[in-house]
Amino acid sequence: MARIDGRSFDEVRPVTITRNYTKYAQGSVLIEMGETKVICTASIEEKVPPFLKNSGKGWITAEYSMLPASTQVRKIRESSRGKVEGRTQEIQRLIGRALRSVIDLEAFGERTIWIDCDVIQADGGTRTAAITGAFVALVDALYHLKSAGQISRLPLKSYISAISVGIVGEKPLLDLCYQEDSNAKVDMNIVMTDKNEFVEVQGTGEEAPFSKESLLELMRLGELGNQHLIKLQKEALGKLADEIAAEGE
Amino acid sequence: MARIDGRSFDEVRPVTITRNYTKYAQGSVLIEMGETKVICTASIEEKVPPFLKNSGKGWITAEYSMLPASTQVRKIRESSRGKVEGRTQEIQRLIGRALRSVIDLEAFGERTIWIDCDVIQADGGTRTAAITGAFVALVDALYHLKSAGQISRLPLKSYISAISVGIVGEKPLLDLCYQEDSNAKVDMNIVMTDKNEFVEVQGTGEEAPFSKESLLELMRLGELGNQHLIKLQKEALGKLADEIAAEGE
Amino acid sequence: MARIDGRSFDEVRPVTITRNYTKYAQGSVLIEMGETKVICTASIEEKVPPFLKNSGKGWITAEYSMLPASTQVRKIRESSRGKVEGRTQEIQRLIGRALRSVIDLEAFGERTIWIDCDVIQADGGTRTAAITGAFVALVDALYHLKSAGQISRLPLKSYISAISVGIVGEKPLLDLCYQEDSNAKVDMNIVMTDKNEFVEVQGTGEEAPFSKESLLELMRLGELGNQHLIKLQKEALGKLADEIAAEGE
Amino acid sequence: MARIDGRSFDEVRPVTITRNYTKYAQGSVLIEMGETKVICTASIEEKVPPFLKNSGKGWITAEYSMLPASTQVRKIRESSRGKVEGRTQEIQRLIGRALRSVIDLEAFGERTIWIDCDVIQADGGTRTAAITGAFVALVDALYHLKSAGQISRLPLKSYISAISVGIVGEKPLLDLCYQEDSNAKVDMNIVMTDKNEFVEVQGTGEEAPFSKESLLELMRLGELGNQHLIKLQKEALGKLADEIAAEGE
Amino acid sequence: MARIDGRSFDEVRPVTITRNYTKYAQGSVLIEMGETKVICTASIEEKVPPFLKNSGKGWITAEYSMLPASTQVRKIRESSRGKVEGRTQEIQRLIGRALRSVIDLEAFGERTIWIDCDVIQADGGTRTAAITGAFVALVDALYHLKSAGQISRLPLKSYISAISVGIVGEKPLLDLCYQEDSNAKVDMNIVMTDKNEFVEVQGTGEEAPFSKESLLELMRLGELGNQHLIKLQKEALGKLADEIAAEGE
Amino acid sequence: MARIDGRSFDEVRPVTITRNYTKYAQGSVLIEMGETKVICTASIEEKVPPFLKNSGKGWITAEYSMLPASTQVRKIRESSRGKVEGRTQEIQRLIGRALRSVIDLEAFGERTIWIDCDVIQADGGTRTAAITGAFVALVDALYHLKSAGQISRLPLKSYISAISVGIVGEKPLLDLCYQEDSNAKVDMNIVMTDKNEFVEVQGTGEEAPFSKESLLELMRLGELGNQHLIKLQKEALGKLADEIAAEGE
Repeated sequence: MARIDGRSFDEVRPVTITRNYTKYAQGSVLIEMGETKVICTASIEEKVPPFLKNSGKGWITAEYSMLPASTQVRKIRESSRGKVEGRTQEIQRLIGRALRSVIDLEAFGERTIWIDCDVIQADGGTRTAAITGAFVALVDALYHLKSAGQISRLPLKSYISAISVGIVGEKPLLDLCYQEDSNAKVDMNIVMTDKNEFVEVQGTGEEAPFSKESLLELMRLGELGNQHLIKLQKEALGKLADEIAAEGE
Repeated sequence: MARIDGRSFDEVRPVTITRNYTKYAQGSVLIEMGETKVICTASIEEKVPPFLKNSGKGWITAEYSMLPASTQVRKIRESSRGKVEGRTQEIQRLIGRALRSVIDLEAFGERTIWIDCDVIQADGGTRTAAITGAFVALVDALYHLKSAGQISRLPLKSYISAISVGIVGEKPLLDLCYQEDSNAKVDMNIVMTDKNEFVEVQGTGEEAPFSKESLLELMRLGELGNQHLIKLQKEALGKLADEIAAEGE
Repeated sequence: MARIDGRSFDEVRPVTITRNYTKYAQGSVLIEMGETKVICTASIEEKVPPFLKNSGKGWITAEYSMLPASTQVRKIRESSRGKVEGRTQEIQRLIGRALRSVIDLEAFGERTIWIDCDVIQADGGTRTAAITGAFVALVDALYHLKSAGQISRLPLKSYISAISVGIVGEKPLLDLCYQEDSNAKVDMNIVMTDKNEFVEVQGTGEEAPFSKESLLELMRLGELGNQHLIKLQKEALGKLADEIAAEGE
Repeated sequence: MARIDGRSFDEVRPVTITRNYTKYAQGSVLIEMGETKVICTASIEEKVPPFLKNSGKGWITAEYSMLPASTQVRKIRESSRGKVEGRTQEIQRLIGRALRSVIDLEAFGERTIWIDCDVIQADGGTRTAAITGAFVALVDALYHLKSAGQISRLPLKSYISAISVGIVGEKPLLDLCYQEDSNAKVDMNIVMTDKNEFVEVQGTGEEAPFSKESLLELMRLGELGNQHLIKLQKEALGKLADEIAAEGE
Repeated sequence: MARIDGRSFDEVRPVTITRNYTKYAQGSVLIEMGETKVICTASIEEKVPPFLKNSGKGWITAEYSMLPASTQVRKIRESSRGKVEGRTQEIQRLIGRALRSVIDLEAFGERTIWIDCDVIQADGGTRTAAITGAFVALVDALYHLKSAGQISRLPLKSYISAISVGIVGEKPLLDLCYQEDSNAKVDMNIVMTDKNEFVEVQGTGEEAPFSKESLLELMRLGELGNQHLIKLQKEALGKLADEIAAEGE
Repeated sequence: MARIDGRSFDEVRPVTITRNYTKYAQGSVLIEMGETKVICTASIEEKVPPFLKNSGKGWITAEYSMLPASTQVRKIRESSRGKVEGRTQEIQRLIGRALRSVIDLEAFGERTIWIDCDVIQADGGTRTAAITGAFVALVDALYHLKSAGQISRLPLKSYISAISVGIVGEKPLLDLCYQEDSNAKVDMNIVMTDKNEFVEVQGTGEEAPFSKESLLELMRLGELGNQHLIKLQKEALGKLADEIAAEGE
């Protein structure tokens, strides 16, 4: 009973993480998970939001958007509608919260890092791909600060990545593509650190409620997927991953 | 090591569910959980959103708002700001999704039931109280349709309720009040049915990631709390709960 | 020729004024006039709008809103529509103007008192009930400042209350309920002080113009109603009313 | 004790009513009252708002705006601010209500007449000038319909005009200019018909409450002013006024 | 082959420039080109936008709007729609850019001059009339600053005016009226100085592309028109034009 | 006197046109001109805007946006600001107008083709690159309709492309990069067909007005650049270009 694209139930789609995808932002990553493609950038701004003025703390905030032609049916541009949809807000709040949880905000000064996740092509799992890619862009931006002598070490507490899991038919699956996602009875996004801890667990059974056993199985798949992704993040970061490891000692 | 208000770690605050709180909506409930007070109404409209026209299906949608003076520091009115905050959108999407999951939307005709949850006083757990109270208002509205002969039976698949849990210090706690919530390292909202199944699990460890063991303990507390709340919903519904039980046979 | 609810033409509906209705705002009142129910709160903010900076003067501003289910047909939430209706703006301007007229704004320092009037249930006369209830909440907020030693006396120039009057059929009536109001040919809101002076007179004859005689009769009813309401405000304020009286000596 | 501009207390400023001021709208009037200048147009649209579809009734709606340079200090354009101020909404609701009160809406078919009042120069009394001028433009638009054979008679119930009155110092004055208005303790707008009846009375004593005697004196001045204005409207309408008179017989 | 209104192909419509049209703005002009009528005002504000703070430079910014009844079919008010149309923004950017190009912004201090162009009646060429009229209002405002001793000389680099040209049928025409404009295959706005230099050339062939020869012929007509308009601006400015000439020596 | 990037004054930057860049839209192109990168998609919608209903005509409309990190300093997202800037509107109007001018709108039925131009990286000339790339995407979308049998031939009247030219220092230059553009005294965008005709000419001399000679020289450069770009479009279209040529016979 193979999946649409031939994967096994616990298999992540092919992942490519391209660093330095564009040239202006301090961190810029194109992440591809199967047919899902998201540009994730991290831009440093030398000021903080009002509630952090004179606190000595920095801030990380995220924005998420889909290009109109990134979806099967063209999506109306939010700037044309004059407002940001609930779904978008939910996603950008999630991305920001996730990234802030692994960064020592007090250790990079009164700066804001703007994370922009722009979906070029959507085939399921855009918000989780955004988190996974944005983390790499964020590391690059932090390294930029360090290289410039503005901070002495990378203020990282952990790696972080995210993956979707769900139940399609009666089958728990890892890393749902769009067609699977739109048929899922239960749908869950799991954000984890490299210490195998959870940062966010968001599971929804709009079509059908689910048992504790299902939840546990989904979480097991989520762990599997996130371990895989964090390995790929490290590979993409290359020498920078070594530097992070060295700093952590 | 008692809690601020003297409760034990697995104790829900005193709950009051007042039906028929206002007179125009077909269902109208004031739910109080400790100092948290939310008016939940269910209003029937004889049409559906465009995407359901001629589908024979009904729809349930929810809106959530806080009175400006419901919080410790006065909150700017969203109508004055001209836009609905991300947090509000997230909550109203959650409430709508939760209620739709236990209703047979095909069984009440091309109608929309508008759920309005207006927080009069906020002391933690307003979104979960809103779900718990709104379910009772929704049952009243459905019963109104049945009494009027517009539907032949109540299109309910389960009861549904919600509760917050979290980790404060190192201690997992059930039903956090505001002061506990603002100190929580992990914060989770759990929506469940009377069959002890999960509809939503939303856990966030912005302050600190959490282990699978913590997650399991929090879910156990969530089950406990929701069982208690569903018992109280049944008591509040009184004879209507009997009718639901009889229909279910 | 009794009225719908059996009242005589010059009779005000039963009024209840409940102080300390919620716990965060410095003043919080639930006013009920028949089936009309409005929560009025007064919240102190330690700053003034830009045009009063460094003036030494304080400010009072009011916002008014109806819960969606407060009316017979559910009303679309203004935050969802993204703008505040003309009617709402007219009402909140009226409430603010009325309250400012009886307060010595120079005597409570550079503070803003936010008056929030949220209609829980609307059965006619919500704007006038809002003024009557908000005055009591405002007194409580001012007393809070005095108790805290931030002002030495209550900066009150008069009591203020408001009532609606109108002509239904050919009959002038006091304190119109919704059904009367929607049949009224002439509709007038009268705001008065305890010195029997007028602060606002807003009369409209959209259905039919009216003579000076009618106007005088309506004003007479308005005086009657406001005298009654101010008596009830004093009763509700209890000891605080005595303190106001003593200060006035 | 003459007024700033030498008028006596009960004297209206010089009034000019220029018909056919612009060429596209069916009615177009420039009204000048002293230095206050307002362009009032009446444009016919062959449809009604949704709530009147298939009712056989017509509708009249008004919009009011001030050119940015019409005031002493340049006023920010409402289109730039992205929203219509409360004051503007209040005024356009007043103008619309006033004009609708003297027109038989059932007698001109399912049409909307858009009244646009654009203030070119503001020196007090813009809203009352707008009503007085708009009535003349409205008559021209109705006559246009009659000439075109679309209605058989002018659906007018009365003439209507409006004027401001107020108390400056202790003195009741008719037709306040800006400088008087900004010093007024009491400020009242009075809308009347040619039968000497009241359509709107809006009096505000934000600076100081006022007695019934003052109110009566202000109303007397308002009557005087409106009689004068209606005489001028008739002169401006010329032969059309005769036609109205003849129809009324 | 005469034009609709009998003009020859290279003839500008009758132009009237009325200075001091309203009394508050420092410059205020009514410009009429045939049936096109635009009020252009120049209002001085004693501050600059944030990007010029402490730069010692001034700023000129323009806003453009059409009265709803200025067009054949009533135009919805942009303040009611809640947003400024693309066409409007394009025009106000053009007007601002044009005027800034001939003024020495460093020579009138940290002030903003607000140019407001409000179209009273539109019969083609409103944006070019706006530029031509606004220049005269701007000179008056600058002269106001000089008279008040706030600047020592008029910071003018050139006169500036604008005119439309186009191809209707196969015929190049100068100064298109609305009916010509709506039939034009090519449509061009040409902004020029009194030194016969170009400031803006905006040509569009939406209906049909055009050759270089056509473009040259249209530019020749544009030169002709602008020379004529600048002569009229000088006449309107009268003694002030002499003063400008004297200063330029 | 070489240019920043070593090009000669009349040299276009290296251009890459990648078709089928994303998979959902019927046409999808990545155009790169030097460091400027724009994704251009053409999405077919089976309906037209209201003003074309039942006209038998199709419509082409364009939207343009810059990713926040596409510019040197991060640009605030228009969806977050809640409104589309004037510059953006100007550009999307230009793109739509340009593409419509070369398409026979009556020949592809009541459909809308949405052109989306999203700038991934901006280094000058984004609007002209957008037009050049969007034309190729549009051809692919039209070909999609033809392949599907929905139209019998490609409704193309010409090829169209666009390029910027300007005067930097005293030197006319072709295809300005950002650094050149920000120093240009004169700046012009030229849109042309493969018949060497002009569709749009937009030249601005905000910094300094320009002579007719300069204008002519800039137009000559523009012709050169556009001829080059249209050659590249044909190469990119490959067999499809042959098909267009064949149809044209």
